[in-house]
Amino acid sequence: MKRALYPGRFQPFHKGHLHAVEYILKDFEEIIIAVMAAQNNFTLDDPFTAGERIWMIRESLKNYIDKIIVIPILNIENNFPWLSNLKSFTPPFDVIFSNHPLIKILCEKEGFEVREIPFLKREEYIGRKIRELMINDKNWQEFLPEPVVNVIYKINGIERIKKLMEKDVI
Amino acid sequence: MKRALYPGRFQPFHKGHLHAVEYILKDFEEIIIAVMAAQNNFTLDDPFTAGERIWMIRESLKNYIDKIIVIPILNIENNFPWLSNLKSFTPPFDVIFSNHPLIKILCEKEGFEVREIPFLKREEYIGRKIRELMINDKNWQEFLPEPVVNVIYKINGIERIKKLMEKDVI
Amino acid sequence: MKRALYPGRFQPFHKGHLHAVEYILKDFEEIIIAVMAAQNNFTLDDPFTAGERIWMIRESLKNYIDKIIVIPILNIENNFPWLSNLKSFTPPFDVIFSNHPLIKILCEKEGFEVREIPFLKREEYIGRKIRELMINDKNWQEFLPEPVVNVIYKINGIERIKKLMEKDVI
Amino acid sequence: MKRALYPGRFQPFHKGHLHAVEYILKDFEEIIIAVMAAQNNFTLDDPFTAGERIWMIRESLKNYIDKIIVIPILNIENNFPWLSNLKSFTPPFDVIFSNHPLIKILCEKEGFEVREIPFLKREEYIGRKIRELMINDKNWQEFLPEPVVNVIYKINGIERIKKLMEKDVI
Amino acid sequence: MKRALYPGRFQPFHKGHLHAVEYILKDFEEIIIAVMAAQNNFTLDDPFTAGERIWMIRESLKNYIDKIIVIPILNIENNFPWLSNLKSFTPPFDVIFSNHPLIKILCEKEGFEVREIPFLKREEYIGRKIRELMINDKNWQEFLPEPVVNVIYKINGIERIKKLMEKDVI
Amino acid sequence: MKRALYPGRFQPFHKGHLHAVEYILKDFEEIIIAVMAAQNNFTLDDPFTAGERIWMIRESLKNYIDKIIVIPILNIENNFPWLSNLKSFTPPFDVIFSNHPLIKILCEKEGFEVREIPFLKREEYIGRKIRELMINDKNWQEFLPEPVVNVIYKINGIERIKKLMEKDVI
Repeated sequence: MKRALYPGRFQPFHKGHLHAVEYILKDFEEIIIAVMAAQNNFTLDDPFTAGERIWMIRESLKNYIDKIIVIPILNIENNFPWLSNLKSFTPPFDVIFSNHPLIKILCEKEGFEVREIPFLKREEYIGRKIRELMINDKNWQEFLPEPVVNVIYKINGIERIKKLMEKDVI
Repeated sequence: MKRALYPGRFQPFHKGHLHAVEYILKDFEEIIIAVMAAQNNFTLDDPFTAGERIWMIRESLKNYIDKIIVIPILNIENNFPWLSNLKSFTPPFDVIFSNHPLIKILCEKEGFEVREIPFLKREEYIGRKIRELMINDKNWQEFLPEPVVNVIYKINGIERIKKLMEKDVI
Repeated sequence: MKRALYPGRFQPFHKGHLHAVEYILKDFEEIIIAVMAAQNNFTLDDPFTAGERIWMIRESLKNYIDKIIVIPILNIENNFPWLSNLKSFTPPFDVIFSNHPLIKILCEKEGFEVREIPFLKREEYIGRKIRELMINDKNWQEFLPEPVVNVIYKINGIERIKKLMEKDVI
Repeated sequence: MKRALYPGRFQPFHKGHLHAVEYILKDFEEIIIAVMAAQNNFTLDDPFTAGERIWMIRESLKNYIDKIIVIPILNIENNFPWLSNLKSFTPPFDVIFSNHPLIKILCEKEGFEVREIPFLKREEYIGRKIRELMINDKNWQEFLPEPVVNVIYKINGIERIKKLMEKDVI
Repeated sequence: MKRALYPGRFQPFHKGHLHAVEYILKDFEEIIIAVMAAQNNFTLDDPFTAGERIWMIRESLKNYIDKIIVIPILNIENNFPWLSNLKSFTPPFDVIFSNHPLIKILCEKEGFEVREIPFLKREEYIGRKIRELMINDKNWQEFLPEPVVNVIYKINGIERIKKLMEKDVI
Repeated sequence: MKRALYPGRFQPFHKGHLHAVEYILKDFEEIIIAVMAAQNNFTLDDPFTAGERIWMIRESLKNYIDKIIVIPILNIENNFPWLSNLKSFTPPFDVIFSNHPLIKILCEKEGFEVREIPFLKREEYIGRKIRELMINDKNWQEFLPEPVVNVIYKINGIERIKKLMEKDVI
């Protein structure tokens, strides 16, 4: 059994993430999707809870449901034991897929393999840009798998993000 | 018994806050004043300890002393359970008074009522502006209830804020 | 202004505590009642939330309402800075009243005065014993100020304690 | 879509747990299995990591793989916001299945439904007893789904538990 | 350069510990002495602060002062990343010396070497026993290096331990 | 015995720090070097672990090895008990040497003496500037004691800092 781990914040889970999962599943039997910064929610950068992100991911990956393991991971302050802390919350895995420089460096010091992800439309499929489209009532829907769009409607996600934008002058 | 909760950082407690308390006490028998970010102190944004803020508030509200309950609340990282965490530290309350978008959204998702506060001189009675007046030796005193001015003198608050302004080039 | 601090867990606030407060108020103008272990609740040793304990205390001390300041204090793991941590959450105080050996030793090392409390009926007014009476449907009411009894009824406190007694065989 | 949540420590996941899952799946389309005390591991009471427990559960429930969502939940010190904290890490759910008195009381105060589980062979299928059988080289295998037995062999689980039993006389 | 790490709570640092350090220094150029449970103090099991323990150790090892590195390490709740967390607070080391089963198992799973320590008078040189001698005014001094005895006198350590023994009947 | 404490982040330990240590050792028999923000590492502002910083400091101070005590100190959120928390992790000391305004104010409120350090070449010997030289392959080496340069080469420190500079467009 070969298992890969794919970490991300998934705020929200978009078509670039979906593409990455499908890319990884070509070579691996199972993929652990690690929902990072799991304790963060209801902020402009992290509007969705870990539970909502898990929900989005499962709904988008119904076709691969027996191959995915979605696990929330809380951020810790001390970066150095990042990989060891992560391992305590997941089944064993062989490779990490990530383009994130910090993750690469934290794994390489442990001799653990990290592989690049050939992201789809890298300049468009970016969580931050999609959140900005949401705030401005632009076409955010086209960047997300349809089930994610549905979850966002169910939880009134657009209204939430717009409210989080408002500043109170206290 | 009808009880309202009024959350704020109160850095420091100013006449706008006093006005809000008096406004709420027209309709409620008791008011819980929640001193938020209670663990923060001796920073430029949060110069006063929770204890000092509680002191300022009590001294300013001597006339209403049997109607106020002042409780420090520590910030937690996970926003979602904000209301439930808050409730564990206070007597029961019926309504929250706040203009803060995040507080509104975190309460509304629980079906808990949040009411607006018609703030007095909204552009002047702002903690950050008052702290800037302190740093520049301007007329900060006129924005604060007199007992707050006295507490600030007793704790050498102006000197503290000015020192916190200094940057050390390390 | 002379202010004393009186720390306790107050699970629940009983007549011995009430007696202690009245004793201290003979010599001090204000008393800070520090509700310790404030984050603990819904356990056999700590059944009541900090908020419920604050409520009990206020209701029992209506006659002294302008002289009391009730403040929840969270336990911290490192004992050594206990006094300094406490001070950050309260207005300034001159003396601590406590018979607790750890509190005495942690204050004495800082040169801070701790005074003994001549407790009333020391063998009867004990939180743990009163909680046992509650579990066994015995006369727990007589050991508590009447307003505390009322709060416990309002929050279904006896039912809570009995349920916490049940063990699940998992 | 009707979704239930089933919390447990699963140290390890045994046939009683499996039976409970199958019982719940008769009435619900999806089940969230919440792996509690997720940060605890390598102790006598909690020998297996959250990741290992998730692994055991998935391997045992291959037949229901599209119906289960397994999520690690870290214990928090403040019991009161237990339900709200839990909700931030999971998709929405309608009912909690648990016989645990604390969980029942923490949910009932929020008006959230908790249902009993008719456990199979309640006196035998108990994590603690099974861990004792492991220490004494008795027939622990018969109480566990075969995939759990396999995981325990792969991670040298029996050796781990026996070593954790040893006391060092320091 | 060959460096070993020797973890312990050192409550207090006794002749058995001293013997272990000397044993290790026969084969290693430097030894890192990790003062574990560093945040614990002023309890019966952990009466001395990390700082006091560091002081005792340095005073006892004046002859080896260029070969020892004494570092306090705070306990973390998640055992699994114990070794990785430890490494973030110390210079690199080649071997750990410990007889503690948990430490052995946590290092072995990482493929990191742990060696046994041939303790001196194992049944006598035990922190817990020495603390009991202190409480009972017995000959605790003979089990400790003389500089440790002196530090304990300077900090009124015996009085502290006796006071921590007293129970308050609250 | 007169002992001074010198706190700093030492990212990395440079010639200005070395000069400060030598300045302090003129008047004090021992110096405690407190490595602050000890849990921070692998970030642009705090690239080196506490352990690596302790290593750099020891290697640079071989000539004073019997006079220095290097202790990592984790940052805490509540600033007020900073001094008391610090004291729990170190042997006793008489004076703190620091130019940092926050440290000065936090000590002065406790009546604890803080002395200024006459820094060498204040505009050049600055951690942030040296880290920028590293990123740009400029002459960072000349600002560091040679043993620090060697440690940085051994841990591939320059490569680490450059990688931490890279931003991933997620």
